[in-house]
Amino acid sequence: MTEPAGIGLDELQLAARNHGMPLEMLREPVTPVGLHYLLIHYDVPQVDAASWRLTVDGLVTHELALGLDDLRAFAPHEVVATMECAGNGRARLDPRPVSQPWLLEAVGTGRWRGARLRDVLEQAGVASGTVELVFTGLDRGVENGEEESFQRSLPLELALEPGVLLAYELNGAPLPPQHGFPLRLLVPGWYGMTNVKWLSRISAVDTPFEGYQQAHSYRLRQTEDDPGEPLSRILPRALMVPPGIPDFMTRERLLPRGVVTIEGRAWSGHAPVTAVEVSTDGCATWDAARLDDDDLGPWAWRRFTYAWDARTAGTHVLSCRARDAAGNEQPVDASWNVGGYANNAVQHVVVNVR
Amino acid sequence: MTEPAGIGLDELQLAARNHGMPLEMLREPVTPVGLHYLLIHYDVPQVDAASWRLTVDGLVTHELALGLDDLRAFAPHEVVATMECAGNGRARLDPRPVSQPWLLEAVGTGRWRGARLRDVLEQAGVASGTVELVFTGLDRGVENGEEESFQRSLPLELALEPGVLLAYELNGAPLPPQHGFPLRLLVPGWYGMTNVKWLSRISAVDTPFEGYQQAHSYRLRQTEDDPGEPLSRILPRALMVPPGIPDFMTRERLLPRGVVTIEGRAWSGHAPVTAVEVSTDGCATWDAARLDDDDLGPWAWRRFTYAWDARTAGTHVLSCRARDAAGNEQPVDASWNVGGYANNAVQHVVVNVR
Repeated sequence: MTEPAGIGLDELQLAARNHGMPLEMLREPVTPVGLHYLLIHYDVPQVDAASWRLTVDGLVTHELALGLDDLRAFAPHEVVATMECAGNGRARLDPRPVSQPWLLEAVGTGRWRGARLRDVLEQAGVASGTVELVFTGLDRGVENGEEESFQRSLPLELALEPGVLLAYELNGAPLPPQHGFPLRLLVPGWYGMTNVKWLSRISAVDTPFEGYQQAHSYRLRQTEDDPGEPLSRILPRALMVPPGIPDFMTRERLLPRGVVTIEGRAWSGHAPVTAVEVSTDGCATWDAARLDDDDLGPWAWRRFTYAWDARTAGTHVLSCRARDAAGNEQPVDASWNVGGYANNAVQHVVVNVR
Repeated sequence: MTEPAGIGLDELQLAARNHGMPLEMLREPVTPVGLHYLLIHYDVPQVDAASWRLTVDGLVTHELALGLDDLRAFAPHEVVATMECAGNGRARLDPRPVSQPWLLEAVGTGRWRGARLRDVLEQAGVASGTVELVFTGLDRGVENGEEESFQRSLPLELALEPGVLLAYELNGAPLPPQHGFPLRLLVPGWYGMTNVKWLSRISAVDTPFEGYQQAHSYRLRQTEDDPGEPLSRILPRALMVPPGIPDFMTRERLLPRGVVTIEGRAWSGHAPVTAVEVSTDGCATWDAARLDDDDLGPWAWRRFTYAWDARTAGTHVLSCRARDAAGNEQPVDASWNVGGYANNAVQHVVVNVR
């Protein structure tokens, strides 16, 4: 519950244009459009769907230029995926890395529909010697004084996984502009930056991609000189719907005495969530929550509930933590890194019981 | 271009859950769902549309309990309205009033559809002696230690104006949860807080309403003890789409040398916008922009364009200002008030021409 030292103008400008998911929306299995988190690095580009084409080039047998109708002609596939920004939790670090100052709300779950990337790659014929695919969006901006398009790469073997989509629909409707209209990459279980929006080009290459968003940004580094490790899959996190009603300014909760069902959702990009625990005493003790058998598929969050007997008037601090089948568990205390990434330290909700 | 002193945790929590409209979306006449600004005082309530009813009571001949189908049975009416938060511009004040720290982005334009409030009131039969109507939302929270529902009132004569709607649709679809599903009040030209979301009750009363959001909040006050003046209609403002491409962190713009068309939108809740001027030299001199003849009706913003010959490399500060037919004009410098409301001081966009 670190108090972030004053957020500056640069951070505020980012916080004012990027969108968090209000935590009460954790009650919804699929996040309604307009409430899913958004991190838009540059500007939302304006795209004419009729003239837009996806180019597939580089080490391929057949260079492709696909329109939306071409992409819809591939067998459609649907994935419900929980997506989280790699910077979620950044503003809870001390000292606070200066960038988009997320607290906990940079998450959402979408029902994405599109063509499988591997089906498109099969049509293009990826040549031997290909090690990665580079994905280029239409969004352009400046990073450290250099103009660039947003670009990220994936290893070939990951790109061929059946859950990886070229998505043209979200929640049963065409992608909204803010989610990458007309097409975005969807890599279930990976942090948000992987899911390149406003996709315009896929290039097969024979050397690892060294662009800004791959080789400099989105890495876990302990010092500025540290090359660090690339961010990839989402670490486990559980978040609860804050119970009761909020104070407008402090967001502290007011709750009448009695038994209340705490509910929330938990996810991990590494492996299925196997346990969620709840603490109602500021992380001194933990108790198992009940996990629902959701039917949203392997890449979506899982609902949990916990009956809390709020019998004592006064201030209580509620927390929750998730563990996955790969043995990853949320820490109570954050680990710092230069970029402020992947801070999955547990949530704290201050509740005033009357 | 005041640098706000450090934003604190309370303000950051609000900024992280409320949504601004990224300014590049000023290029759209109607804001796509998910990009319109949102200020959600408490939590988004969960509403079961089948059992939900709008109660109309108080000084009425026939108390009503209307479901969504009942409301759809009234003659439907559509209004394209530009809505702005009364707190837009708050974070640009010095000293900065502590609340939701908007810079400039708390705006959006929606195509709202619903029943006319006056038609519903006619069915209820408002009794003589009624001076105001009190609107109650389903959202509950705590203000200064007191639990309350979100409530606002309107004078009867305003409530009877033909543009005032009980809106059940936005942009051709049912209201999304974040915009007040299943029903919200729409008072075109008034600041956002007037447009009560998740509407559950309308009560005709014979004395002015003195609730928190009417008598304490949303008033222009110079001191804490000042009763102040209530906020009502939106002051004029022009905003431009920042030209060129952004630096990720600073949001400063990079633009190649040459003539560029600056575009934006201007609005006022008092009277039609009659002029927009642009400055490209940090408000030293101003030049008239061209106003489009939009066809969005009297309550929507108006597009403007300005051809700027960006012939000189270096840093330029662009601004724009609107004037309306009632003689209101945007100031270059902000006027401070306790709540940080209605700061319509002109926008500044820093552009680096290369």
